[in-house]
Amino acid sequence: MKFFELKKKGENRARLGVIRTPHGEIQTPVFMPVGTQASVKTMTPEELKEIGTQIILSNTYHLYLRPGADIVANAGGLHSFMNWDRAILTDSGGFQVFSLAKLREIDDDGVSFRSHLDGSKHRLSPEISIGVQEKLGADIIMSFDECPPYPASKEEVRAAVNRTSKWAERGKKFHSRKDQALFGIVQGGVFGDLREQSAKDLVSMDFPGYSIGGLSVGEPADLMYETLDYTVPHLPEDKPRYLMGVGTLDYLLEGVFRGVDMFDCVFPTRVARKGTAITREGKIVVRNATYASDLRPVEEGCTCYTCQNYTRSYIRHLFKAGEILALRLLSIHNLHVLHTFMAEIREHIKNNTLTDFREEFWERQGLPVPEYKS
Amino acid sequence: MKFFELKKKGENRARLGVIRTPHGEIQTPVFMPVGTQASVKTMTPEELKEIGTQIILSNTYHLYLRPGADIVANAGGLHSFMNWDRAILTDSGGFQVFSLAKLREIDDDGVSFRSHLDGSKHRLSPEISIGVQEKLGADIIMSFDECPPYPASKEEVRAAVNRTSKWAERGKKFHSRKDQALFGIVQGGVFGDLREQSAKDLVSMDFPGYSIGGLSVGEPADLMYETLDYTVPHLPEDKPRYLMGVGTLDYLLEGVFRGVDMFDCVFPTRVARKGTAITREGKIVVRNATYASDLRPVEEGCTCYTCQNYTRSYIRHLFKAGEILALRLLSIHNLHVLHTFMAEIREHIKNNTLTDFREEFWERQGLPVPEYKS
Repeated sequence: MKFFELKKKGENRARLGVIRTPHGEIQTPVFMPVGTQASVKTMTPEELKEIGTQIILSNTYHLYLRPGADIVANAGGLHSFMNWDRAILTDSGGFQVFSLAKLREIDDDGVSFRSHLDGSKHRLSPEISIGVQEKLGADIIMSFDECPPYPASKEEVRAAVNRTSKWAERGKKFHSRKDQALFGIVQGGVFGDLREQSAKDLVSMDFPGYSIGGLSVGEPADLMYETLDYTVPHLPEDKPRYLMGVGTLDYLLEGVFRGVDMFDCVFPTRVARKGTAITREGKIVVRNATYASDLRPVEEGCTCYTCQNYTRSYIRHLFKAGEILALRLLSIHNLHVLHTFMAEIREHIKNNTLTDFREEFWERQGLPVPEYKS
Repeated sequence: MKFFELKKKGENRARLGVIRTPHGEIQTPVFMPVGTQASVKTMTPEELKEIGTQIILSNTYHLYLRPGADIVANAGGLHSFMNWDRAILTDSGGFQVFSLAKLREIDDDGVSFRSHLDGSKHRLSPEISIGVQEKLGADIIMSFDECPPYPASKEEVRAAVNRTSKWAERGKKFHSRKDQALFGIVQGGVFGDLREQSAKDLVSMDFPGYSIGGLSVGEPADLMYETLDYTVPHLPEDKPRYLMGVGTLDYLLEGVFRGVDMFDCVFPTRVARKGTAITREGKIVVRNATYASDLRPVEEGCTCYTCQNYTRSYIRHLFKAGEILALRLLSIHNLHVLHTFMAEIREHIKNNTLTDFREEFWERQGLPVPEYKS
């Protein structure tokens, strides 16, 4: 059984595919909700299934620190620990070490750092990261990579690319669980030649899938799109491509159009907890006073549990009153919107109508269609 | 259709009954979860139904301040505002004015106070409280009462009893919604003659139900039991009796044994959010380190969603990590325990086995059976 099957090459670089894991199939392109600490914040597995979640992401850095990989392994791995029987992807911890941890000291072997939770000393290396991810037991796991900040000089990014390639090789060698698919992560910042080098390095190692890291980290949208346009052609067509950390409707659509199959982001659940609903017409800050007596659902026509059962007036009250149900209701809605958006995109790829859909999408935002570098 | 039907007089003063409301029947004795701000904290209506919630309580003081009765009325009342189609009971706001509000000034007409939220000035009186409760639209509503603190002098309590009787009369006169059952509230602290006077005053006004207020406010358990024993005989058998603010297994059992039909308390959901599970064997502080690798459910043998799907190890992790799902899971469990406990009590009343059940209950706690003053 092939891990990834490319079912259709659609308009531009968009594609339809299926990923097969020990915990079920995933129709791509797919958005993956983030369960950083073995919980997609506020939600149960049943609620995720109801809105169509096929796979979730969890964070190795966080789980390594708390509760620790052994506690998760003791429960039989992440699936049984958190009661989620569909697919899971874990990241390598690399990005979090570089963005969250304190007092990092990086060398060619790995990274020493202090926990952002309690200042305790820790070390991650390609081997340690893979070892932790084997204990966590996700279906798809990531190579340990170095993520330079944005902006960074070309020399810094080049060094990170070289280290990431060496670390990918070491991780691949160390990895022994055959039921897990280990992805390589392409780095290279916004430098075309470095992206090309990174992609070629990793592709030569023949991973079952490739992630595109180091984007959506503060660079302008156009630069991200351009980077995708010159990175994706260096990735093999028969392997899934995963753009890390992307989860807004515009980025998802442009990512798919540019050949990406998988996405994840905390954005939809994070803004939900702050009172912002994602809709096709733009964001709605539900906690604003203007909605105090508004008896419409968050988004008219939406079929999610929240919109079928609650008004803006009620949800606004829950936010003002600090009620946890508010966070749940908007999390459900926002993830539902992203999942239905991706399902619609898959339909448009199937029907060869993605270009039209894309043009209408940008028209509705009142913005020009982003340039595409073929 | 009678509002209350006494179906069986069981052992001691325990009784089985049914309350009929425009939003369904309630089998008594019953525990009512509290949705202070139009939300039983962390939970959806569907989750409450799944664990067997027949009726919830919501707080007039809180809803009057936020979002305001007109916002709720604009949605068609509390049931549609919060999407709960079973029965609702609202309190009068009296207890909260006396326990939460700032700078209270009480006179014979009512109470002026400042909001605990923003310090704004407000006034509640018997008429205003009933007016607000009519806008909220609960099935069962409460007379506006004066709740003296515990301990209070006999003279203070006597004054509160007299005022509560006068206010009950005014509220009853003002109340016009025929689809709502307005209860009188018996005060009198721990003074037998004042409880008797209060009960007689209210019973002479012929309310469809009677609440017992001013208990479970810090007095010793024995004194609460004793107060029930001399208060209940002054209440009519054909009307439901509601002991306000009681929600621990021991108090529920003793309350039922002493002739109470209805109970409410924030206790089960409040302790849940702090990481404490209620079980038949006593409390479990799930967030303690001792449960870090414990793969048992919160309570073995429990049939609730939480215990069927999650381990102590996972829930402990969620609490340590500050995950909201933890609060949800223990809220479900704790309310499930109280509802199944009450369902079991109803079975024991039916089968004339409540006395045995009560003795076993206290034996399991390692405590003597509380004295009963017949």
